[in-house]
Amino acid sequence: MSLDRLMVKIYEKQNPTVAGLDPLLEYVPEFIRRRAYKENGEGLRGAAEAILQFNIGLIDALYDIVPAVKPQAAYYELYGYEGVRALHETIAYAKQKGMFVITDGKRNDIGSTMQAYATAHLGEVSVEGKVYEPFGADALTVNGYLGTDGIAPLLEVCNQKDKGIFVLVKTSNPSSGELQDKHIEGTTVYNRMGQMCQEWGKSLMGKYGYSGVGAVVGATYPSQLKELREKLQETFFLIPGYGAQGGGAEGVALGFDKKGKGAIVNSSRAIMCAWKKEGCPSEEYAQAARREAIRMKKDIMSHIGKISL
Amino acid sequence: MSLDRLMVKIYEKQNPTVAGLDPLLEYVPEFIRRRAYKENGEGLRGAAEAILQFNIGLIDALYDIVPAVKPQAAYYELYGYEGVRALHETIAYAKQKGMFVITDGKRNDIGSTMQAYATAHLGEVSVEGKVYEPFGADALTVNGYLGTDGIAPLLEVCNQKDKGIFVLVKTSNPSSGELQDKHIEGTTVYNRMGQMCQEWGKSLMGKYGYSGVGAVVGATYPSQLKELREKLQETFFLIPGYGAQGGGAEGVALGFDKKGKGAIVNSSRAIMCAWKKEGCPSEEYAQAARREAIRMKKDIMSHIGKISL
Repeated sequence: MSLDRLMVKIYEKQNPTVAGLDPLLEYVPEFIRRRAYKENGEGLRGAAEAILQFNIGLIDALYDIVPAVKPQAAYYELYGYEGVRALHETIAYAKQKGMFVITDGKRNDIGSTMQAYATAHLGEVSVEGKVYEPFGADALTVNGYLGTDGIAPLLEVCNQKDKGIFVLVKTSNPSSGELQDKHIEGTTVYNRMGQMCQEWGKSLMGKYGYSGVGAVVGATYPSQLKELREKLQETFFLIPGYGAQGGGAEGVALGFDKKGKGAIVNSSRAIMCAWKKEGCPSEEYAQAARREAIRMKKDIMSHIGKISL
Repeated sequence: MSLDRLMVKIYEKQNPTVAGLDPLLEYVPEFIRRRAYKENGEGLRGAAEAILQFNIGLIDALYDIVPAVKPQAAYYELYGYEGVRALHETIAYAKQKGMFVITDGKRNDIGSTMQAYATAHLGEVSVEGKVYEPFGADALTVNGYLGTDGIAPLLEVCNQKDKGIFVLVKTSNPSSGELQDKHIEGTTVYNRMGQMCQEWGKSLMGKYGYSGVGAVVGATYPSQLKELREKLQETFFLIPGYGAQGGGAEGVALGFDKKGKGAIVNSSRAIMCAWKKEGCPSEEYAQAARREAIRMKKDIMSHIGKISL
């Protein structure tokens, strides 16, 4: 019903980072692609198998030091329903290895449709009385533009299945201010969205001071990150934009509370493509990812100190 | 690059409506479910096959009188990757029958991730030099909360592949006002989003006065629908909320221009579940859907008169 399971994993590993699994085919080393095509053909099925095998290698290299993965749904839909099968298998594999899985889908809708998304990604669906987990993630990113009608169905599933959500509040992209920074009735759109997260979270409070309704707040806007950390004391942050998009560890640290809690920082490309940046043989892509994950952890931990619960 | 192909189909059929395909398993007649389970098992695969066969029956009954279908992605994801395969097959079948397909996914993200969604749903992906259509819809609904960075990648694909998008502006649900109605800098959030649609659409103008960037505006708020129709003269509207959610034809008519153009009205449950409401045998579900589609067309056309191009 909250994000406590994630917070415990972060505490145990003393690592408040999540590895984004956004596997464009061009990131996948050739030896993996060739092997996948051999058994599955050089089409969407083969591509999907290649990204799955790429992910499995990354998870094997990271699961003992990184608490969570965040597969981005778009990169799986890109390879059609075969790609979506790879998303399913990736989630299952990461969970089996003990990782917390955040599906980054930014889903949004209302009523029974939002209920369907909540069930699909976090819950169980019934077919003639038997239940199945369609995707089985631990948390889902969502977009709150539609208001409470779009969030309420998620809260129910989170409560029943001990899952969480992250609502977009202040995103990391350059044009995020076009709407999010506008002033509304004495505050800004992103502040209003943040307040709604606090309200929605009241029914999903965890043991460590944070609710099951987290917020996405970009590393690229440190002053807003600081402002929101002060205002939204029960809202856990998922922070994208570290590294590739320009957010530094010093800014990112503003998203944490005094106990080193309250946030998790994402890195996708820098981890997935570490082997390219290092210039090491592609066969070592997973070890290179591990080296980058360790570097990132040290970089962020050097600014926030120890994590307590 | 625009929504002209949709406008032509609406004109030819003199029918500005779209059938929403949101197939919960409980909407599917038992004879279809049984048949699907026999060959595919009574699990997610069987459920996905059942909703696909249900959709095929609906499309067969509607394609000569209804210009478009709108499958809602959530109801396919609900049955896992097998459900997503059913979405793919539904889109392919509807297109083969000459219908315009709007995937209702309300997707949103930034940069290369939004590019992946655009390619997945509207474009073609390359695998080792060969191209594939992952889903192949004609249009996609999207959420503009992230600003231009989230929309720009779509405009490129729309331009190249003659596709369109619909951006959420004023949604049909009761709590849509929590954010969308707030006042920002002399206007409201939904008006600001509408203005952005006009701006984004400038690069995708069609031959009939409307661009490829449409807006979702709910039938449940007739005064806002009227206001937006007057302000957003080049923005085509997708209007949900007719019927089940309480929007009437008189209100819906406010979304059309003087030539009967500029909008398409969605109905999902009333069409899919017409057989239940009529109390006719479930074997006649498709004919009942057709009767409801004709009733809806007449209801709306009686308020807007003839459609010209």
